[in-house]
Amino acid sequence: MGLMANGHNYPLSFTGLGFRLVLRGLFVAEEAALKEKEKKRRVQQSGKLKMANDKATKSNAHPKSGGKKKEVKKETGLGLSHKKDENFGEWYSEVVVSGEMIEYYDISGCYILRPWTMSIWEIMQAFFDAEIKKMKIKNCYFPVFVSPGVLQREKDHIEGFAPEVAWVTKSGDTDLEVPIAIRPTSETVMYPYFSKWIRGHRDLPLRLNQWCNVVRWEFSNPTPFIRSREFLWQEGHTAFATKAEADKEVLEVLELYRRIYEEFLAIPVVKGKKSENEKFAGGLYTTSVEAFIPNTGRGIQGATSHCLGQNFAKMFEINFENEKGEKGMVWQNSWAYSTRTIGVMVMVHGDDKGLVLPPKVASVQVIVIPVPYKDADTQAIFDACSTTVERLNEAGFRAEADLRDNYSPGWKYSNWELKGVPLRIEIGPKDMANNQVRVVRRDNGSKVDIPTSNLVEQIKDTLDNIQQSLFDAAKQKRDASVTVAKTWEEFIIALNAKKMILAPWCDEEEVERDVKTRTKGEMGAAKTLCTPFEQPELPEGTLCFASGKPATKWTYWGRSY
Amino acid sequence: MGLMANGHNYPLSFTGLGFRLVLRGLFVAEEAALKEKEKKRRVQQSGKLKMANDKATKSNAHPKSGGKKKEVKKETGLGLSHKKDENFGEWYSEVVVSGEMIEYYDISGCYILRPWTMSIWEIMQAFFDAEIKKMKIKNCYFPVFVSPGVLQREKDHIEGFAPEVAWVTKSGDTDLEVPIAIRPTSETVMYPYFSKWIRGHRDLPLRLNQWCNVVRWEFSNPTPFIRSREFLWQEGHTAFATKAEADKEVLEVLELYRRIYEEFLAIPVVKGKKSENEKFAGGLYTTSVEAFIPNTGRGIQGATSHCLGQNFAKMFEINFENEKGEKGMVWQNSWAYSTRTIGVMVMVHGDDKGLVLPPKVASVQVIVIPVPYKDADTQAIFDACSTTVERLNEAGFRAEADLRDNYSPGWKYSNWELKGVPLRIEIGPKDMANNQVRVVRRDNGSKVDIPTSNLVEQIKDTLDNIQQSLFDAAKQKRDASVTVAKTWEEFIIALNAKKMILAPWCDEEEVERDVKTRTKGEMGAAKTLCTPFEQPELPEGTLCFASGKPATKWTYWGRSY
Repeated sequence: MGLMANGHNYPLSFTGLGFRLVLRGLFVAEEAALKEKEKKRRVQQSGKLKMANDKATKSNAHPKSGGKKKEVKKETGLGLSHKKDENFGEWYSEVVVSGEMIEYYDISGCYILRPWTMSIWEIMQAFFDAEIKKMKIKNCYFPVFVSPGVLQREKDHIEGFAPEVAWVTKSGDTDLEVPIAIRPTSETVMYPYFSKWIRGHRDLPLRLNQWCNVVRWEFSNPTPFIRSREFLWQEGHTAFATKAEADKEVLEVLELYRRIYEEFLAIPVVKGKKSENEKFAGGLYTTSVEAFIPNTGRGIQGATSHCLGQNFAKMFEINFENEKGEKGMVWQNSWAYSTRTIGVMVMVHGDDKGLVLPPKVASVQVIVIPVPYKDADTQAIFDACSTTVERLNEAGFRAEADLRDNYSPGWKYSNWELKGVPLRIEIGPKDMANNQVRVVRRDNGSKVDIPTSNLVEQIKDTLDNIQQSLFDAAKQKRDASVTVAKTWEEFIIALNAKKMILAPWCDEEEVERDVKTRTKGEMGAAKTLCTPFEQPELPEGTLCFASGKPATKWTYWGRSY
Repeated sequence: MGLMANGHNYPLSFTGLGFRLVLRGLFVAEEAALKEKEKKRRVQQSGKLKMANDKATKSNAHPKSGGKKKEVKKETGLGLSHKKDENFGEWYSEVVVSGEMIEYYDISGCYILRPWTMSIWEIMQAFFDAEIKKMKIKNCYFPVFVSPGVLQREKDHIEGFAPEVAWVTKSGDTDLEVPIAIRPTSETVMYPYFSKWIRGHRDLPLRLNQWCNVVRWEFSNPTPFIRSREFLWQEGHTAFATKAEADKEVLEVLELYRRIYEEFLAIPVVKGKKSENEKFAGGLYTTSVEAFIPNTGRGIQGATSHCLGQNFAKMFEINFENEKGEKGMVWQNSWAYSTRTIGVMVMVHGDDKGLVLPPKVASVQVIVIPVPYKDADTQAIFDACSTTVERLNEAGFRAEADLRDNYSPGWKYSNWELKGVPLRIEIGPKDMANNQVRVVRRDNGSKVDIPTSNLVEQIKDTLDNIQQSLFDAAKQKRDASVTVAKTWEEFIIALNAKKMILAPWCDEEEVERDVKTRTKGEMGAAKTLCTPFEQPELPEGTLCFASGKPATKWTYWGRSY
């Protein structure tokens, strides 16, 4: 996603009308109606939590963790009212709000990123920022404003972004002489200065990155994280003397994106190359990591790493004198990942109890909950919880105790399940007596008693295991969605079955456009997702599923976000 | 600075016309003229560097570091063309550009923050972010857009910001139904949600912070870092059940701001309270750290920590139920520091050779430069440089070697002096033979030979010493600027002598307004900077310097940014 944009297909865009139907009832194109809905949900939500709060305060008791748990949960109304498999769109909107990741804002398409979201973003940021610094890429900050002349310099580029550019035309009561655009991406913001700074081969490579907000004023189907009018991202912009260096960096950055998805967010992705139709407009070629959402049967572009070739260099006159004193033109890349990553994580791992956070990105990896009984020594149990947290923190884990005295253990279980904390530790009088703690996994609900003597080692193993299990489960589901289609008939059957389709293709632009036309409909058209770098064998004589011409490659197809 | 704003006096604003004259020739109110100037400087600058580059390449030699140094410097044109004490305004503009901290942008009042700036910002950010996390303050991200209704909710607040709010009125070719503001600060963005999230006393305290860009579309006197239309900052917004808790946090945060200035930027500041005239409009009271720029004789608000009292809570209905079931209203704070900090650092420490960076914020603390001679073993010298860098990096210092072969050592000396690197290490054949390196301090130019056996220890001591020396020197200059004035005559003499004036005051708003009126003129009016927390003794019977009424406190007065 991110920098990907061309005349036909925007970044963060849903193809056609499909998703609107999937999220039927939530997304209404008309803005006012949407706002009304959002307001209603907000009121419902806050009413629900308020009630829960009151109930819990009034009951002022610690029901046993066993039999009463379900009842408490029901009482408090903490459960989600939508199920992931029944109404994915409503489920998603509910889970990001109830899990306290997002708050809907009074300007449609804008969302408040709450601390629970920011902590995930910051963990990924720390990783990525350190990695690019190792690559000698340096952070900078360019203005959020672009003057119209510069914005329009690259024709294909502006064609892609023009409809969604927000324009500042006034300050105070005064009209500006010239309207000023808010950056939808920063190619045109930065490259005039690349032209200025780069004189000779010794000024190369120039490798910059910035962490910032960008604005794309889209009017349809806003979705938290996935498609919003403002989002946070990093955008890297680099210039090299040779194509070989640019090519190398494209793949190095793409590998970092793969690691963010697979190692941090536990989401399997396919690395590959975009088709000519789908590449960044004005660029030479685009690589991406592609994820898949089985529930909606849609691919989702996870992050993109583009080689821009020399096209922008030509438009912005980014020239240099090489070692021999000859004039050359730089080779450029740009690459980005955004807060969209977090939305993909919610969609892939979340369940009917709420969020499920992979341990590596969870700001609370272990929540410790005291389970006091009427005649037990409550203070001793609370102390044991605090000690457990201390031990885990010292060992480098992110653990917290929930010692609030106005909520029942059952309410707390549900609350932290909703928020997706990977591991829960329960400590009651029986656990104290047996020198053990009860450990409950968020991902599969399994419960084990761990001797306190072995606490740190077993928590470490369990967290590692959860991280791997989440990835394995997501991969299994993703793989189960992949279908090979060698003919048009097979392709249509697979598409209707919400599959991610691997098909032999002749690699002709016109054929992709034709497939789009032929599959247009309520759910949106199918298009190429990417041509995977890892190519299965393509026996000689294999024909394109769509054109019947000789196939030159295997390519993933499907509907997409 | 930062959140400080009221009807009369904006954050980041220069009072009156004074500074324009100081920066005469640079700052012309008319935008086009300003742009023209900027363009001219850009061309000059790049031409200069280009020439330097060419010369160095052509000479293709390593002149001796001794006698030829001055000549090389002259040749390359690396020196600044303005002197700090002669033309401060031009000097400042030149040093931030030549030192590669800032690039002027094609929209007036917007600046590109180059990597040399961002590395300083990131070091301060890492410190502050970790400290507020210890205080259980959590990061969030609210939208950059504000709807007009919410923005106007607090009357005094909007009065302060209205003239400089940038408005988005179009997306693509479509007019928005309602214009949307870009945040100048986020009180009105956030507090409707505080109202929603806070129900009972258990939801308190609510302590949030965000790192973001804000926009204030000012039309006069743009200055890099100090006064720009977009800048980066953190803004903290917190709510408490009691005033006592809010009061405590105000001072805790102010202490962090003091540490940023004094411990990181080596700039002495005064902690104090703002007068009623100068406090954040709509707030209860404002505390600040105040720095002073001896060259211009102006105070500069370094950062502000406000107690907002319950005023915003009233406007935004931020209520809660306390332990006894009674309805209460929250007490709020807001606090901010911005990239202005970096401008103050440049102004205080920079000299006629360029930037001077305190070691704690320098991304390169030590630059190692080979000084090869014709018959010496160049490779061995280069290797010694690399080894030195490795040893320093391993010991935790930020060191780099400048091994470029197309620049003379003298050119490199000047270049890294211009960029303000605290320590330079020179390694030549003689140093190699004697198992030593030559170490040159940026702050005072002193040179010592250090035995390589003792490298790490002595570099550590020297860097610590530089950090302290910079602070001491700045403090000495600041202290020398402070003048006590007990009468109006003494006050005027001190003001004309560009002093920071400590005067006994009756603390009446009208008297401050009167002082402003009586001191209006080309250089701008004088006003209160702050009432320092550390109060000298005020003998009974002391009278206000301005009104002749009984004085109640000592207060700092002066012209300011």
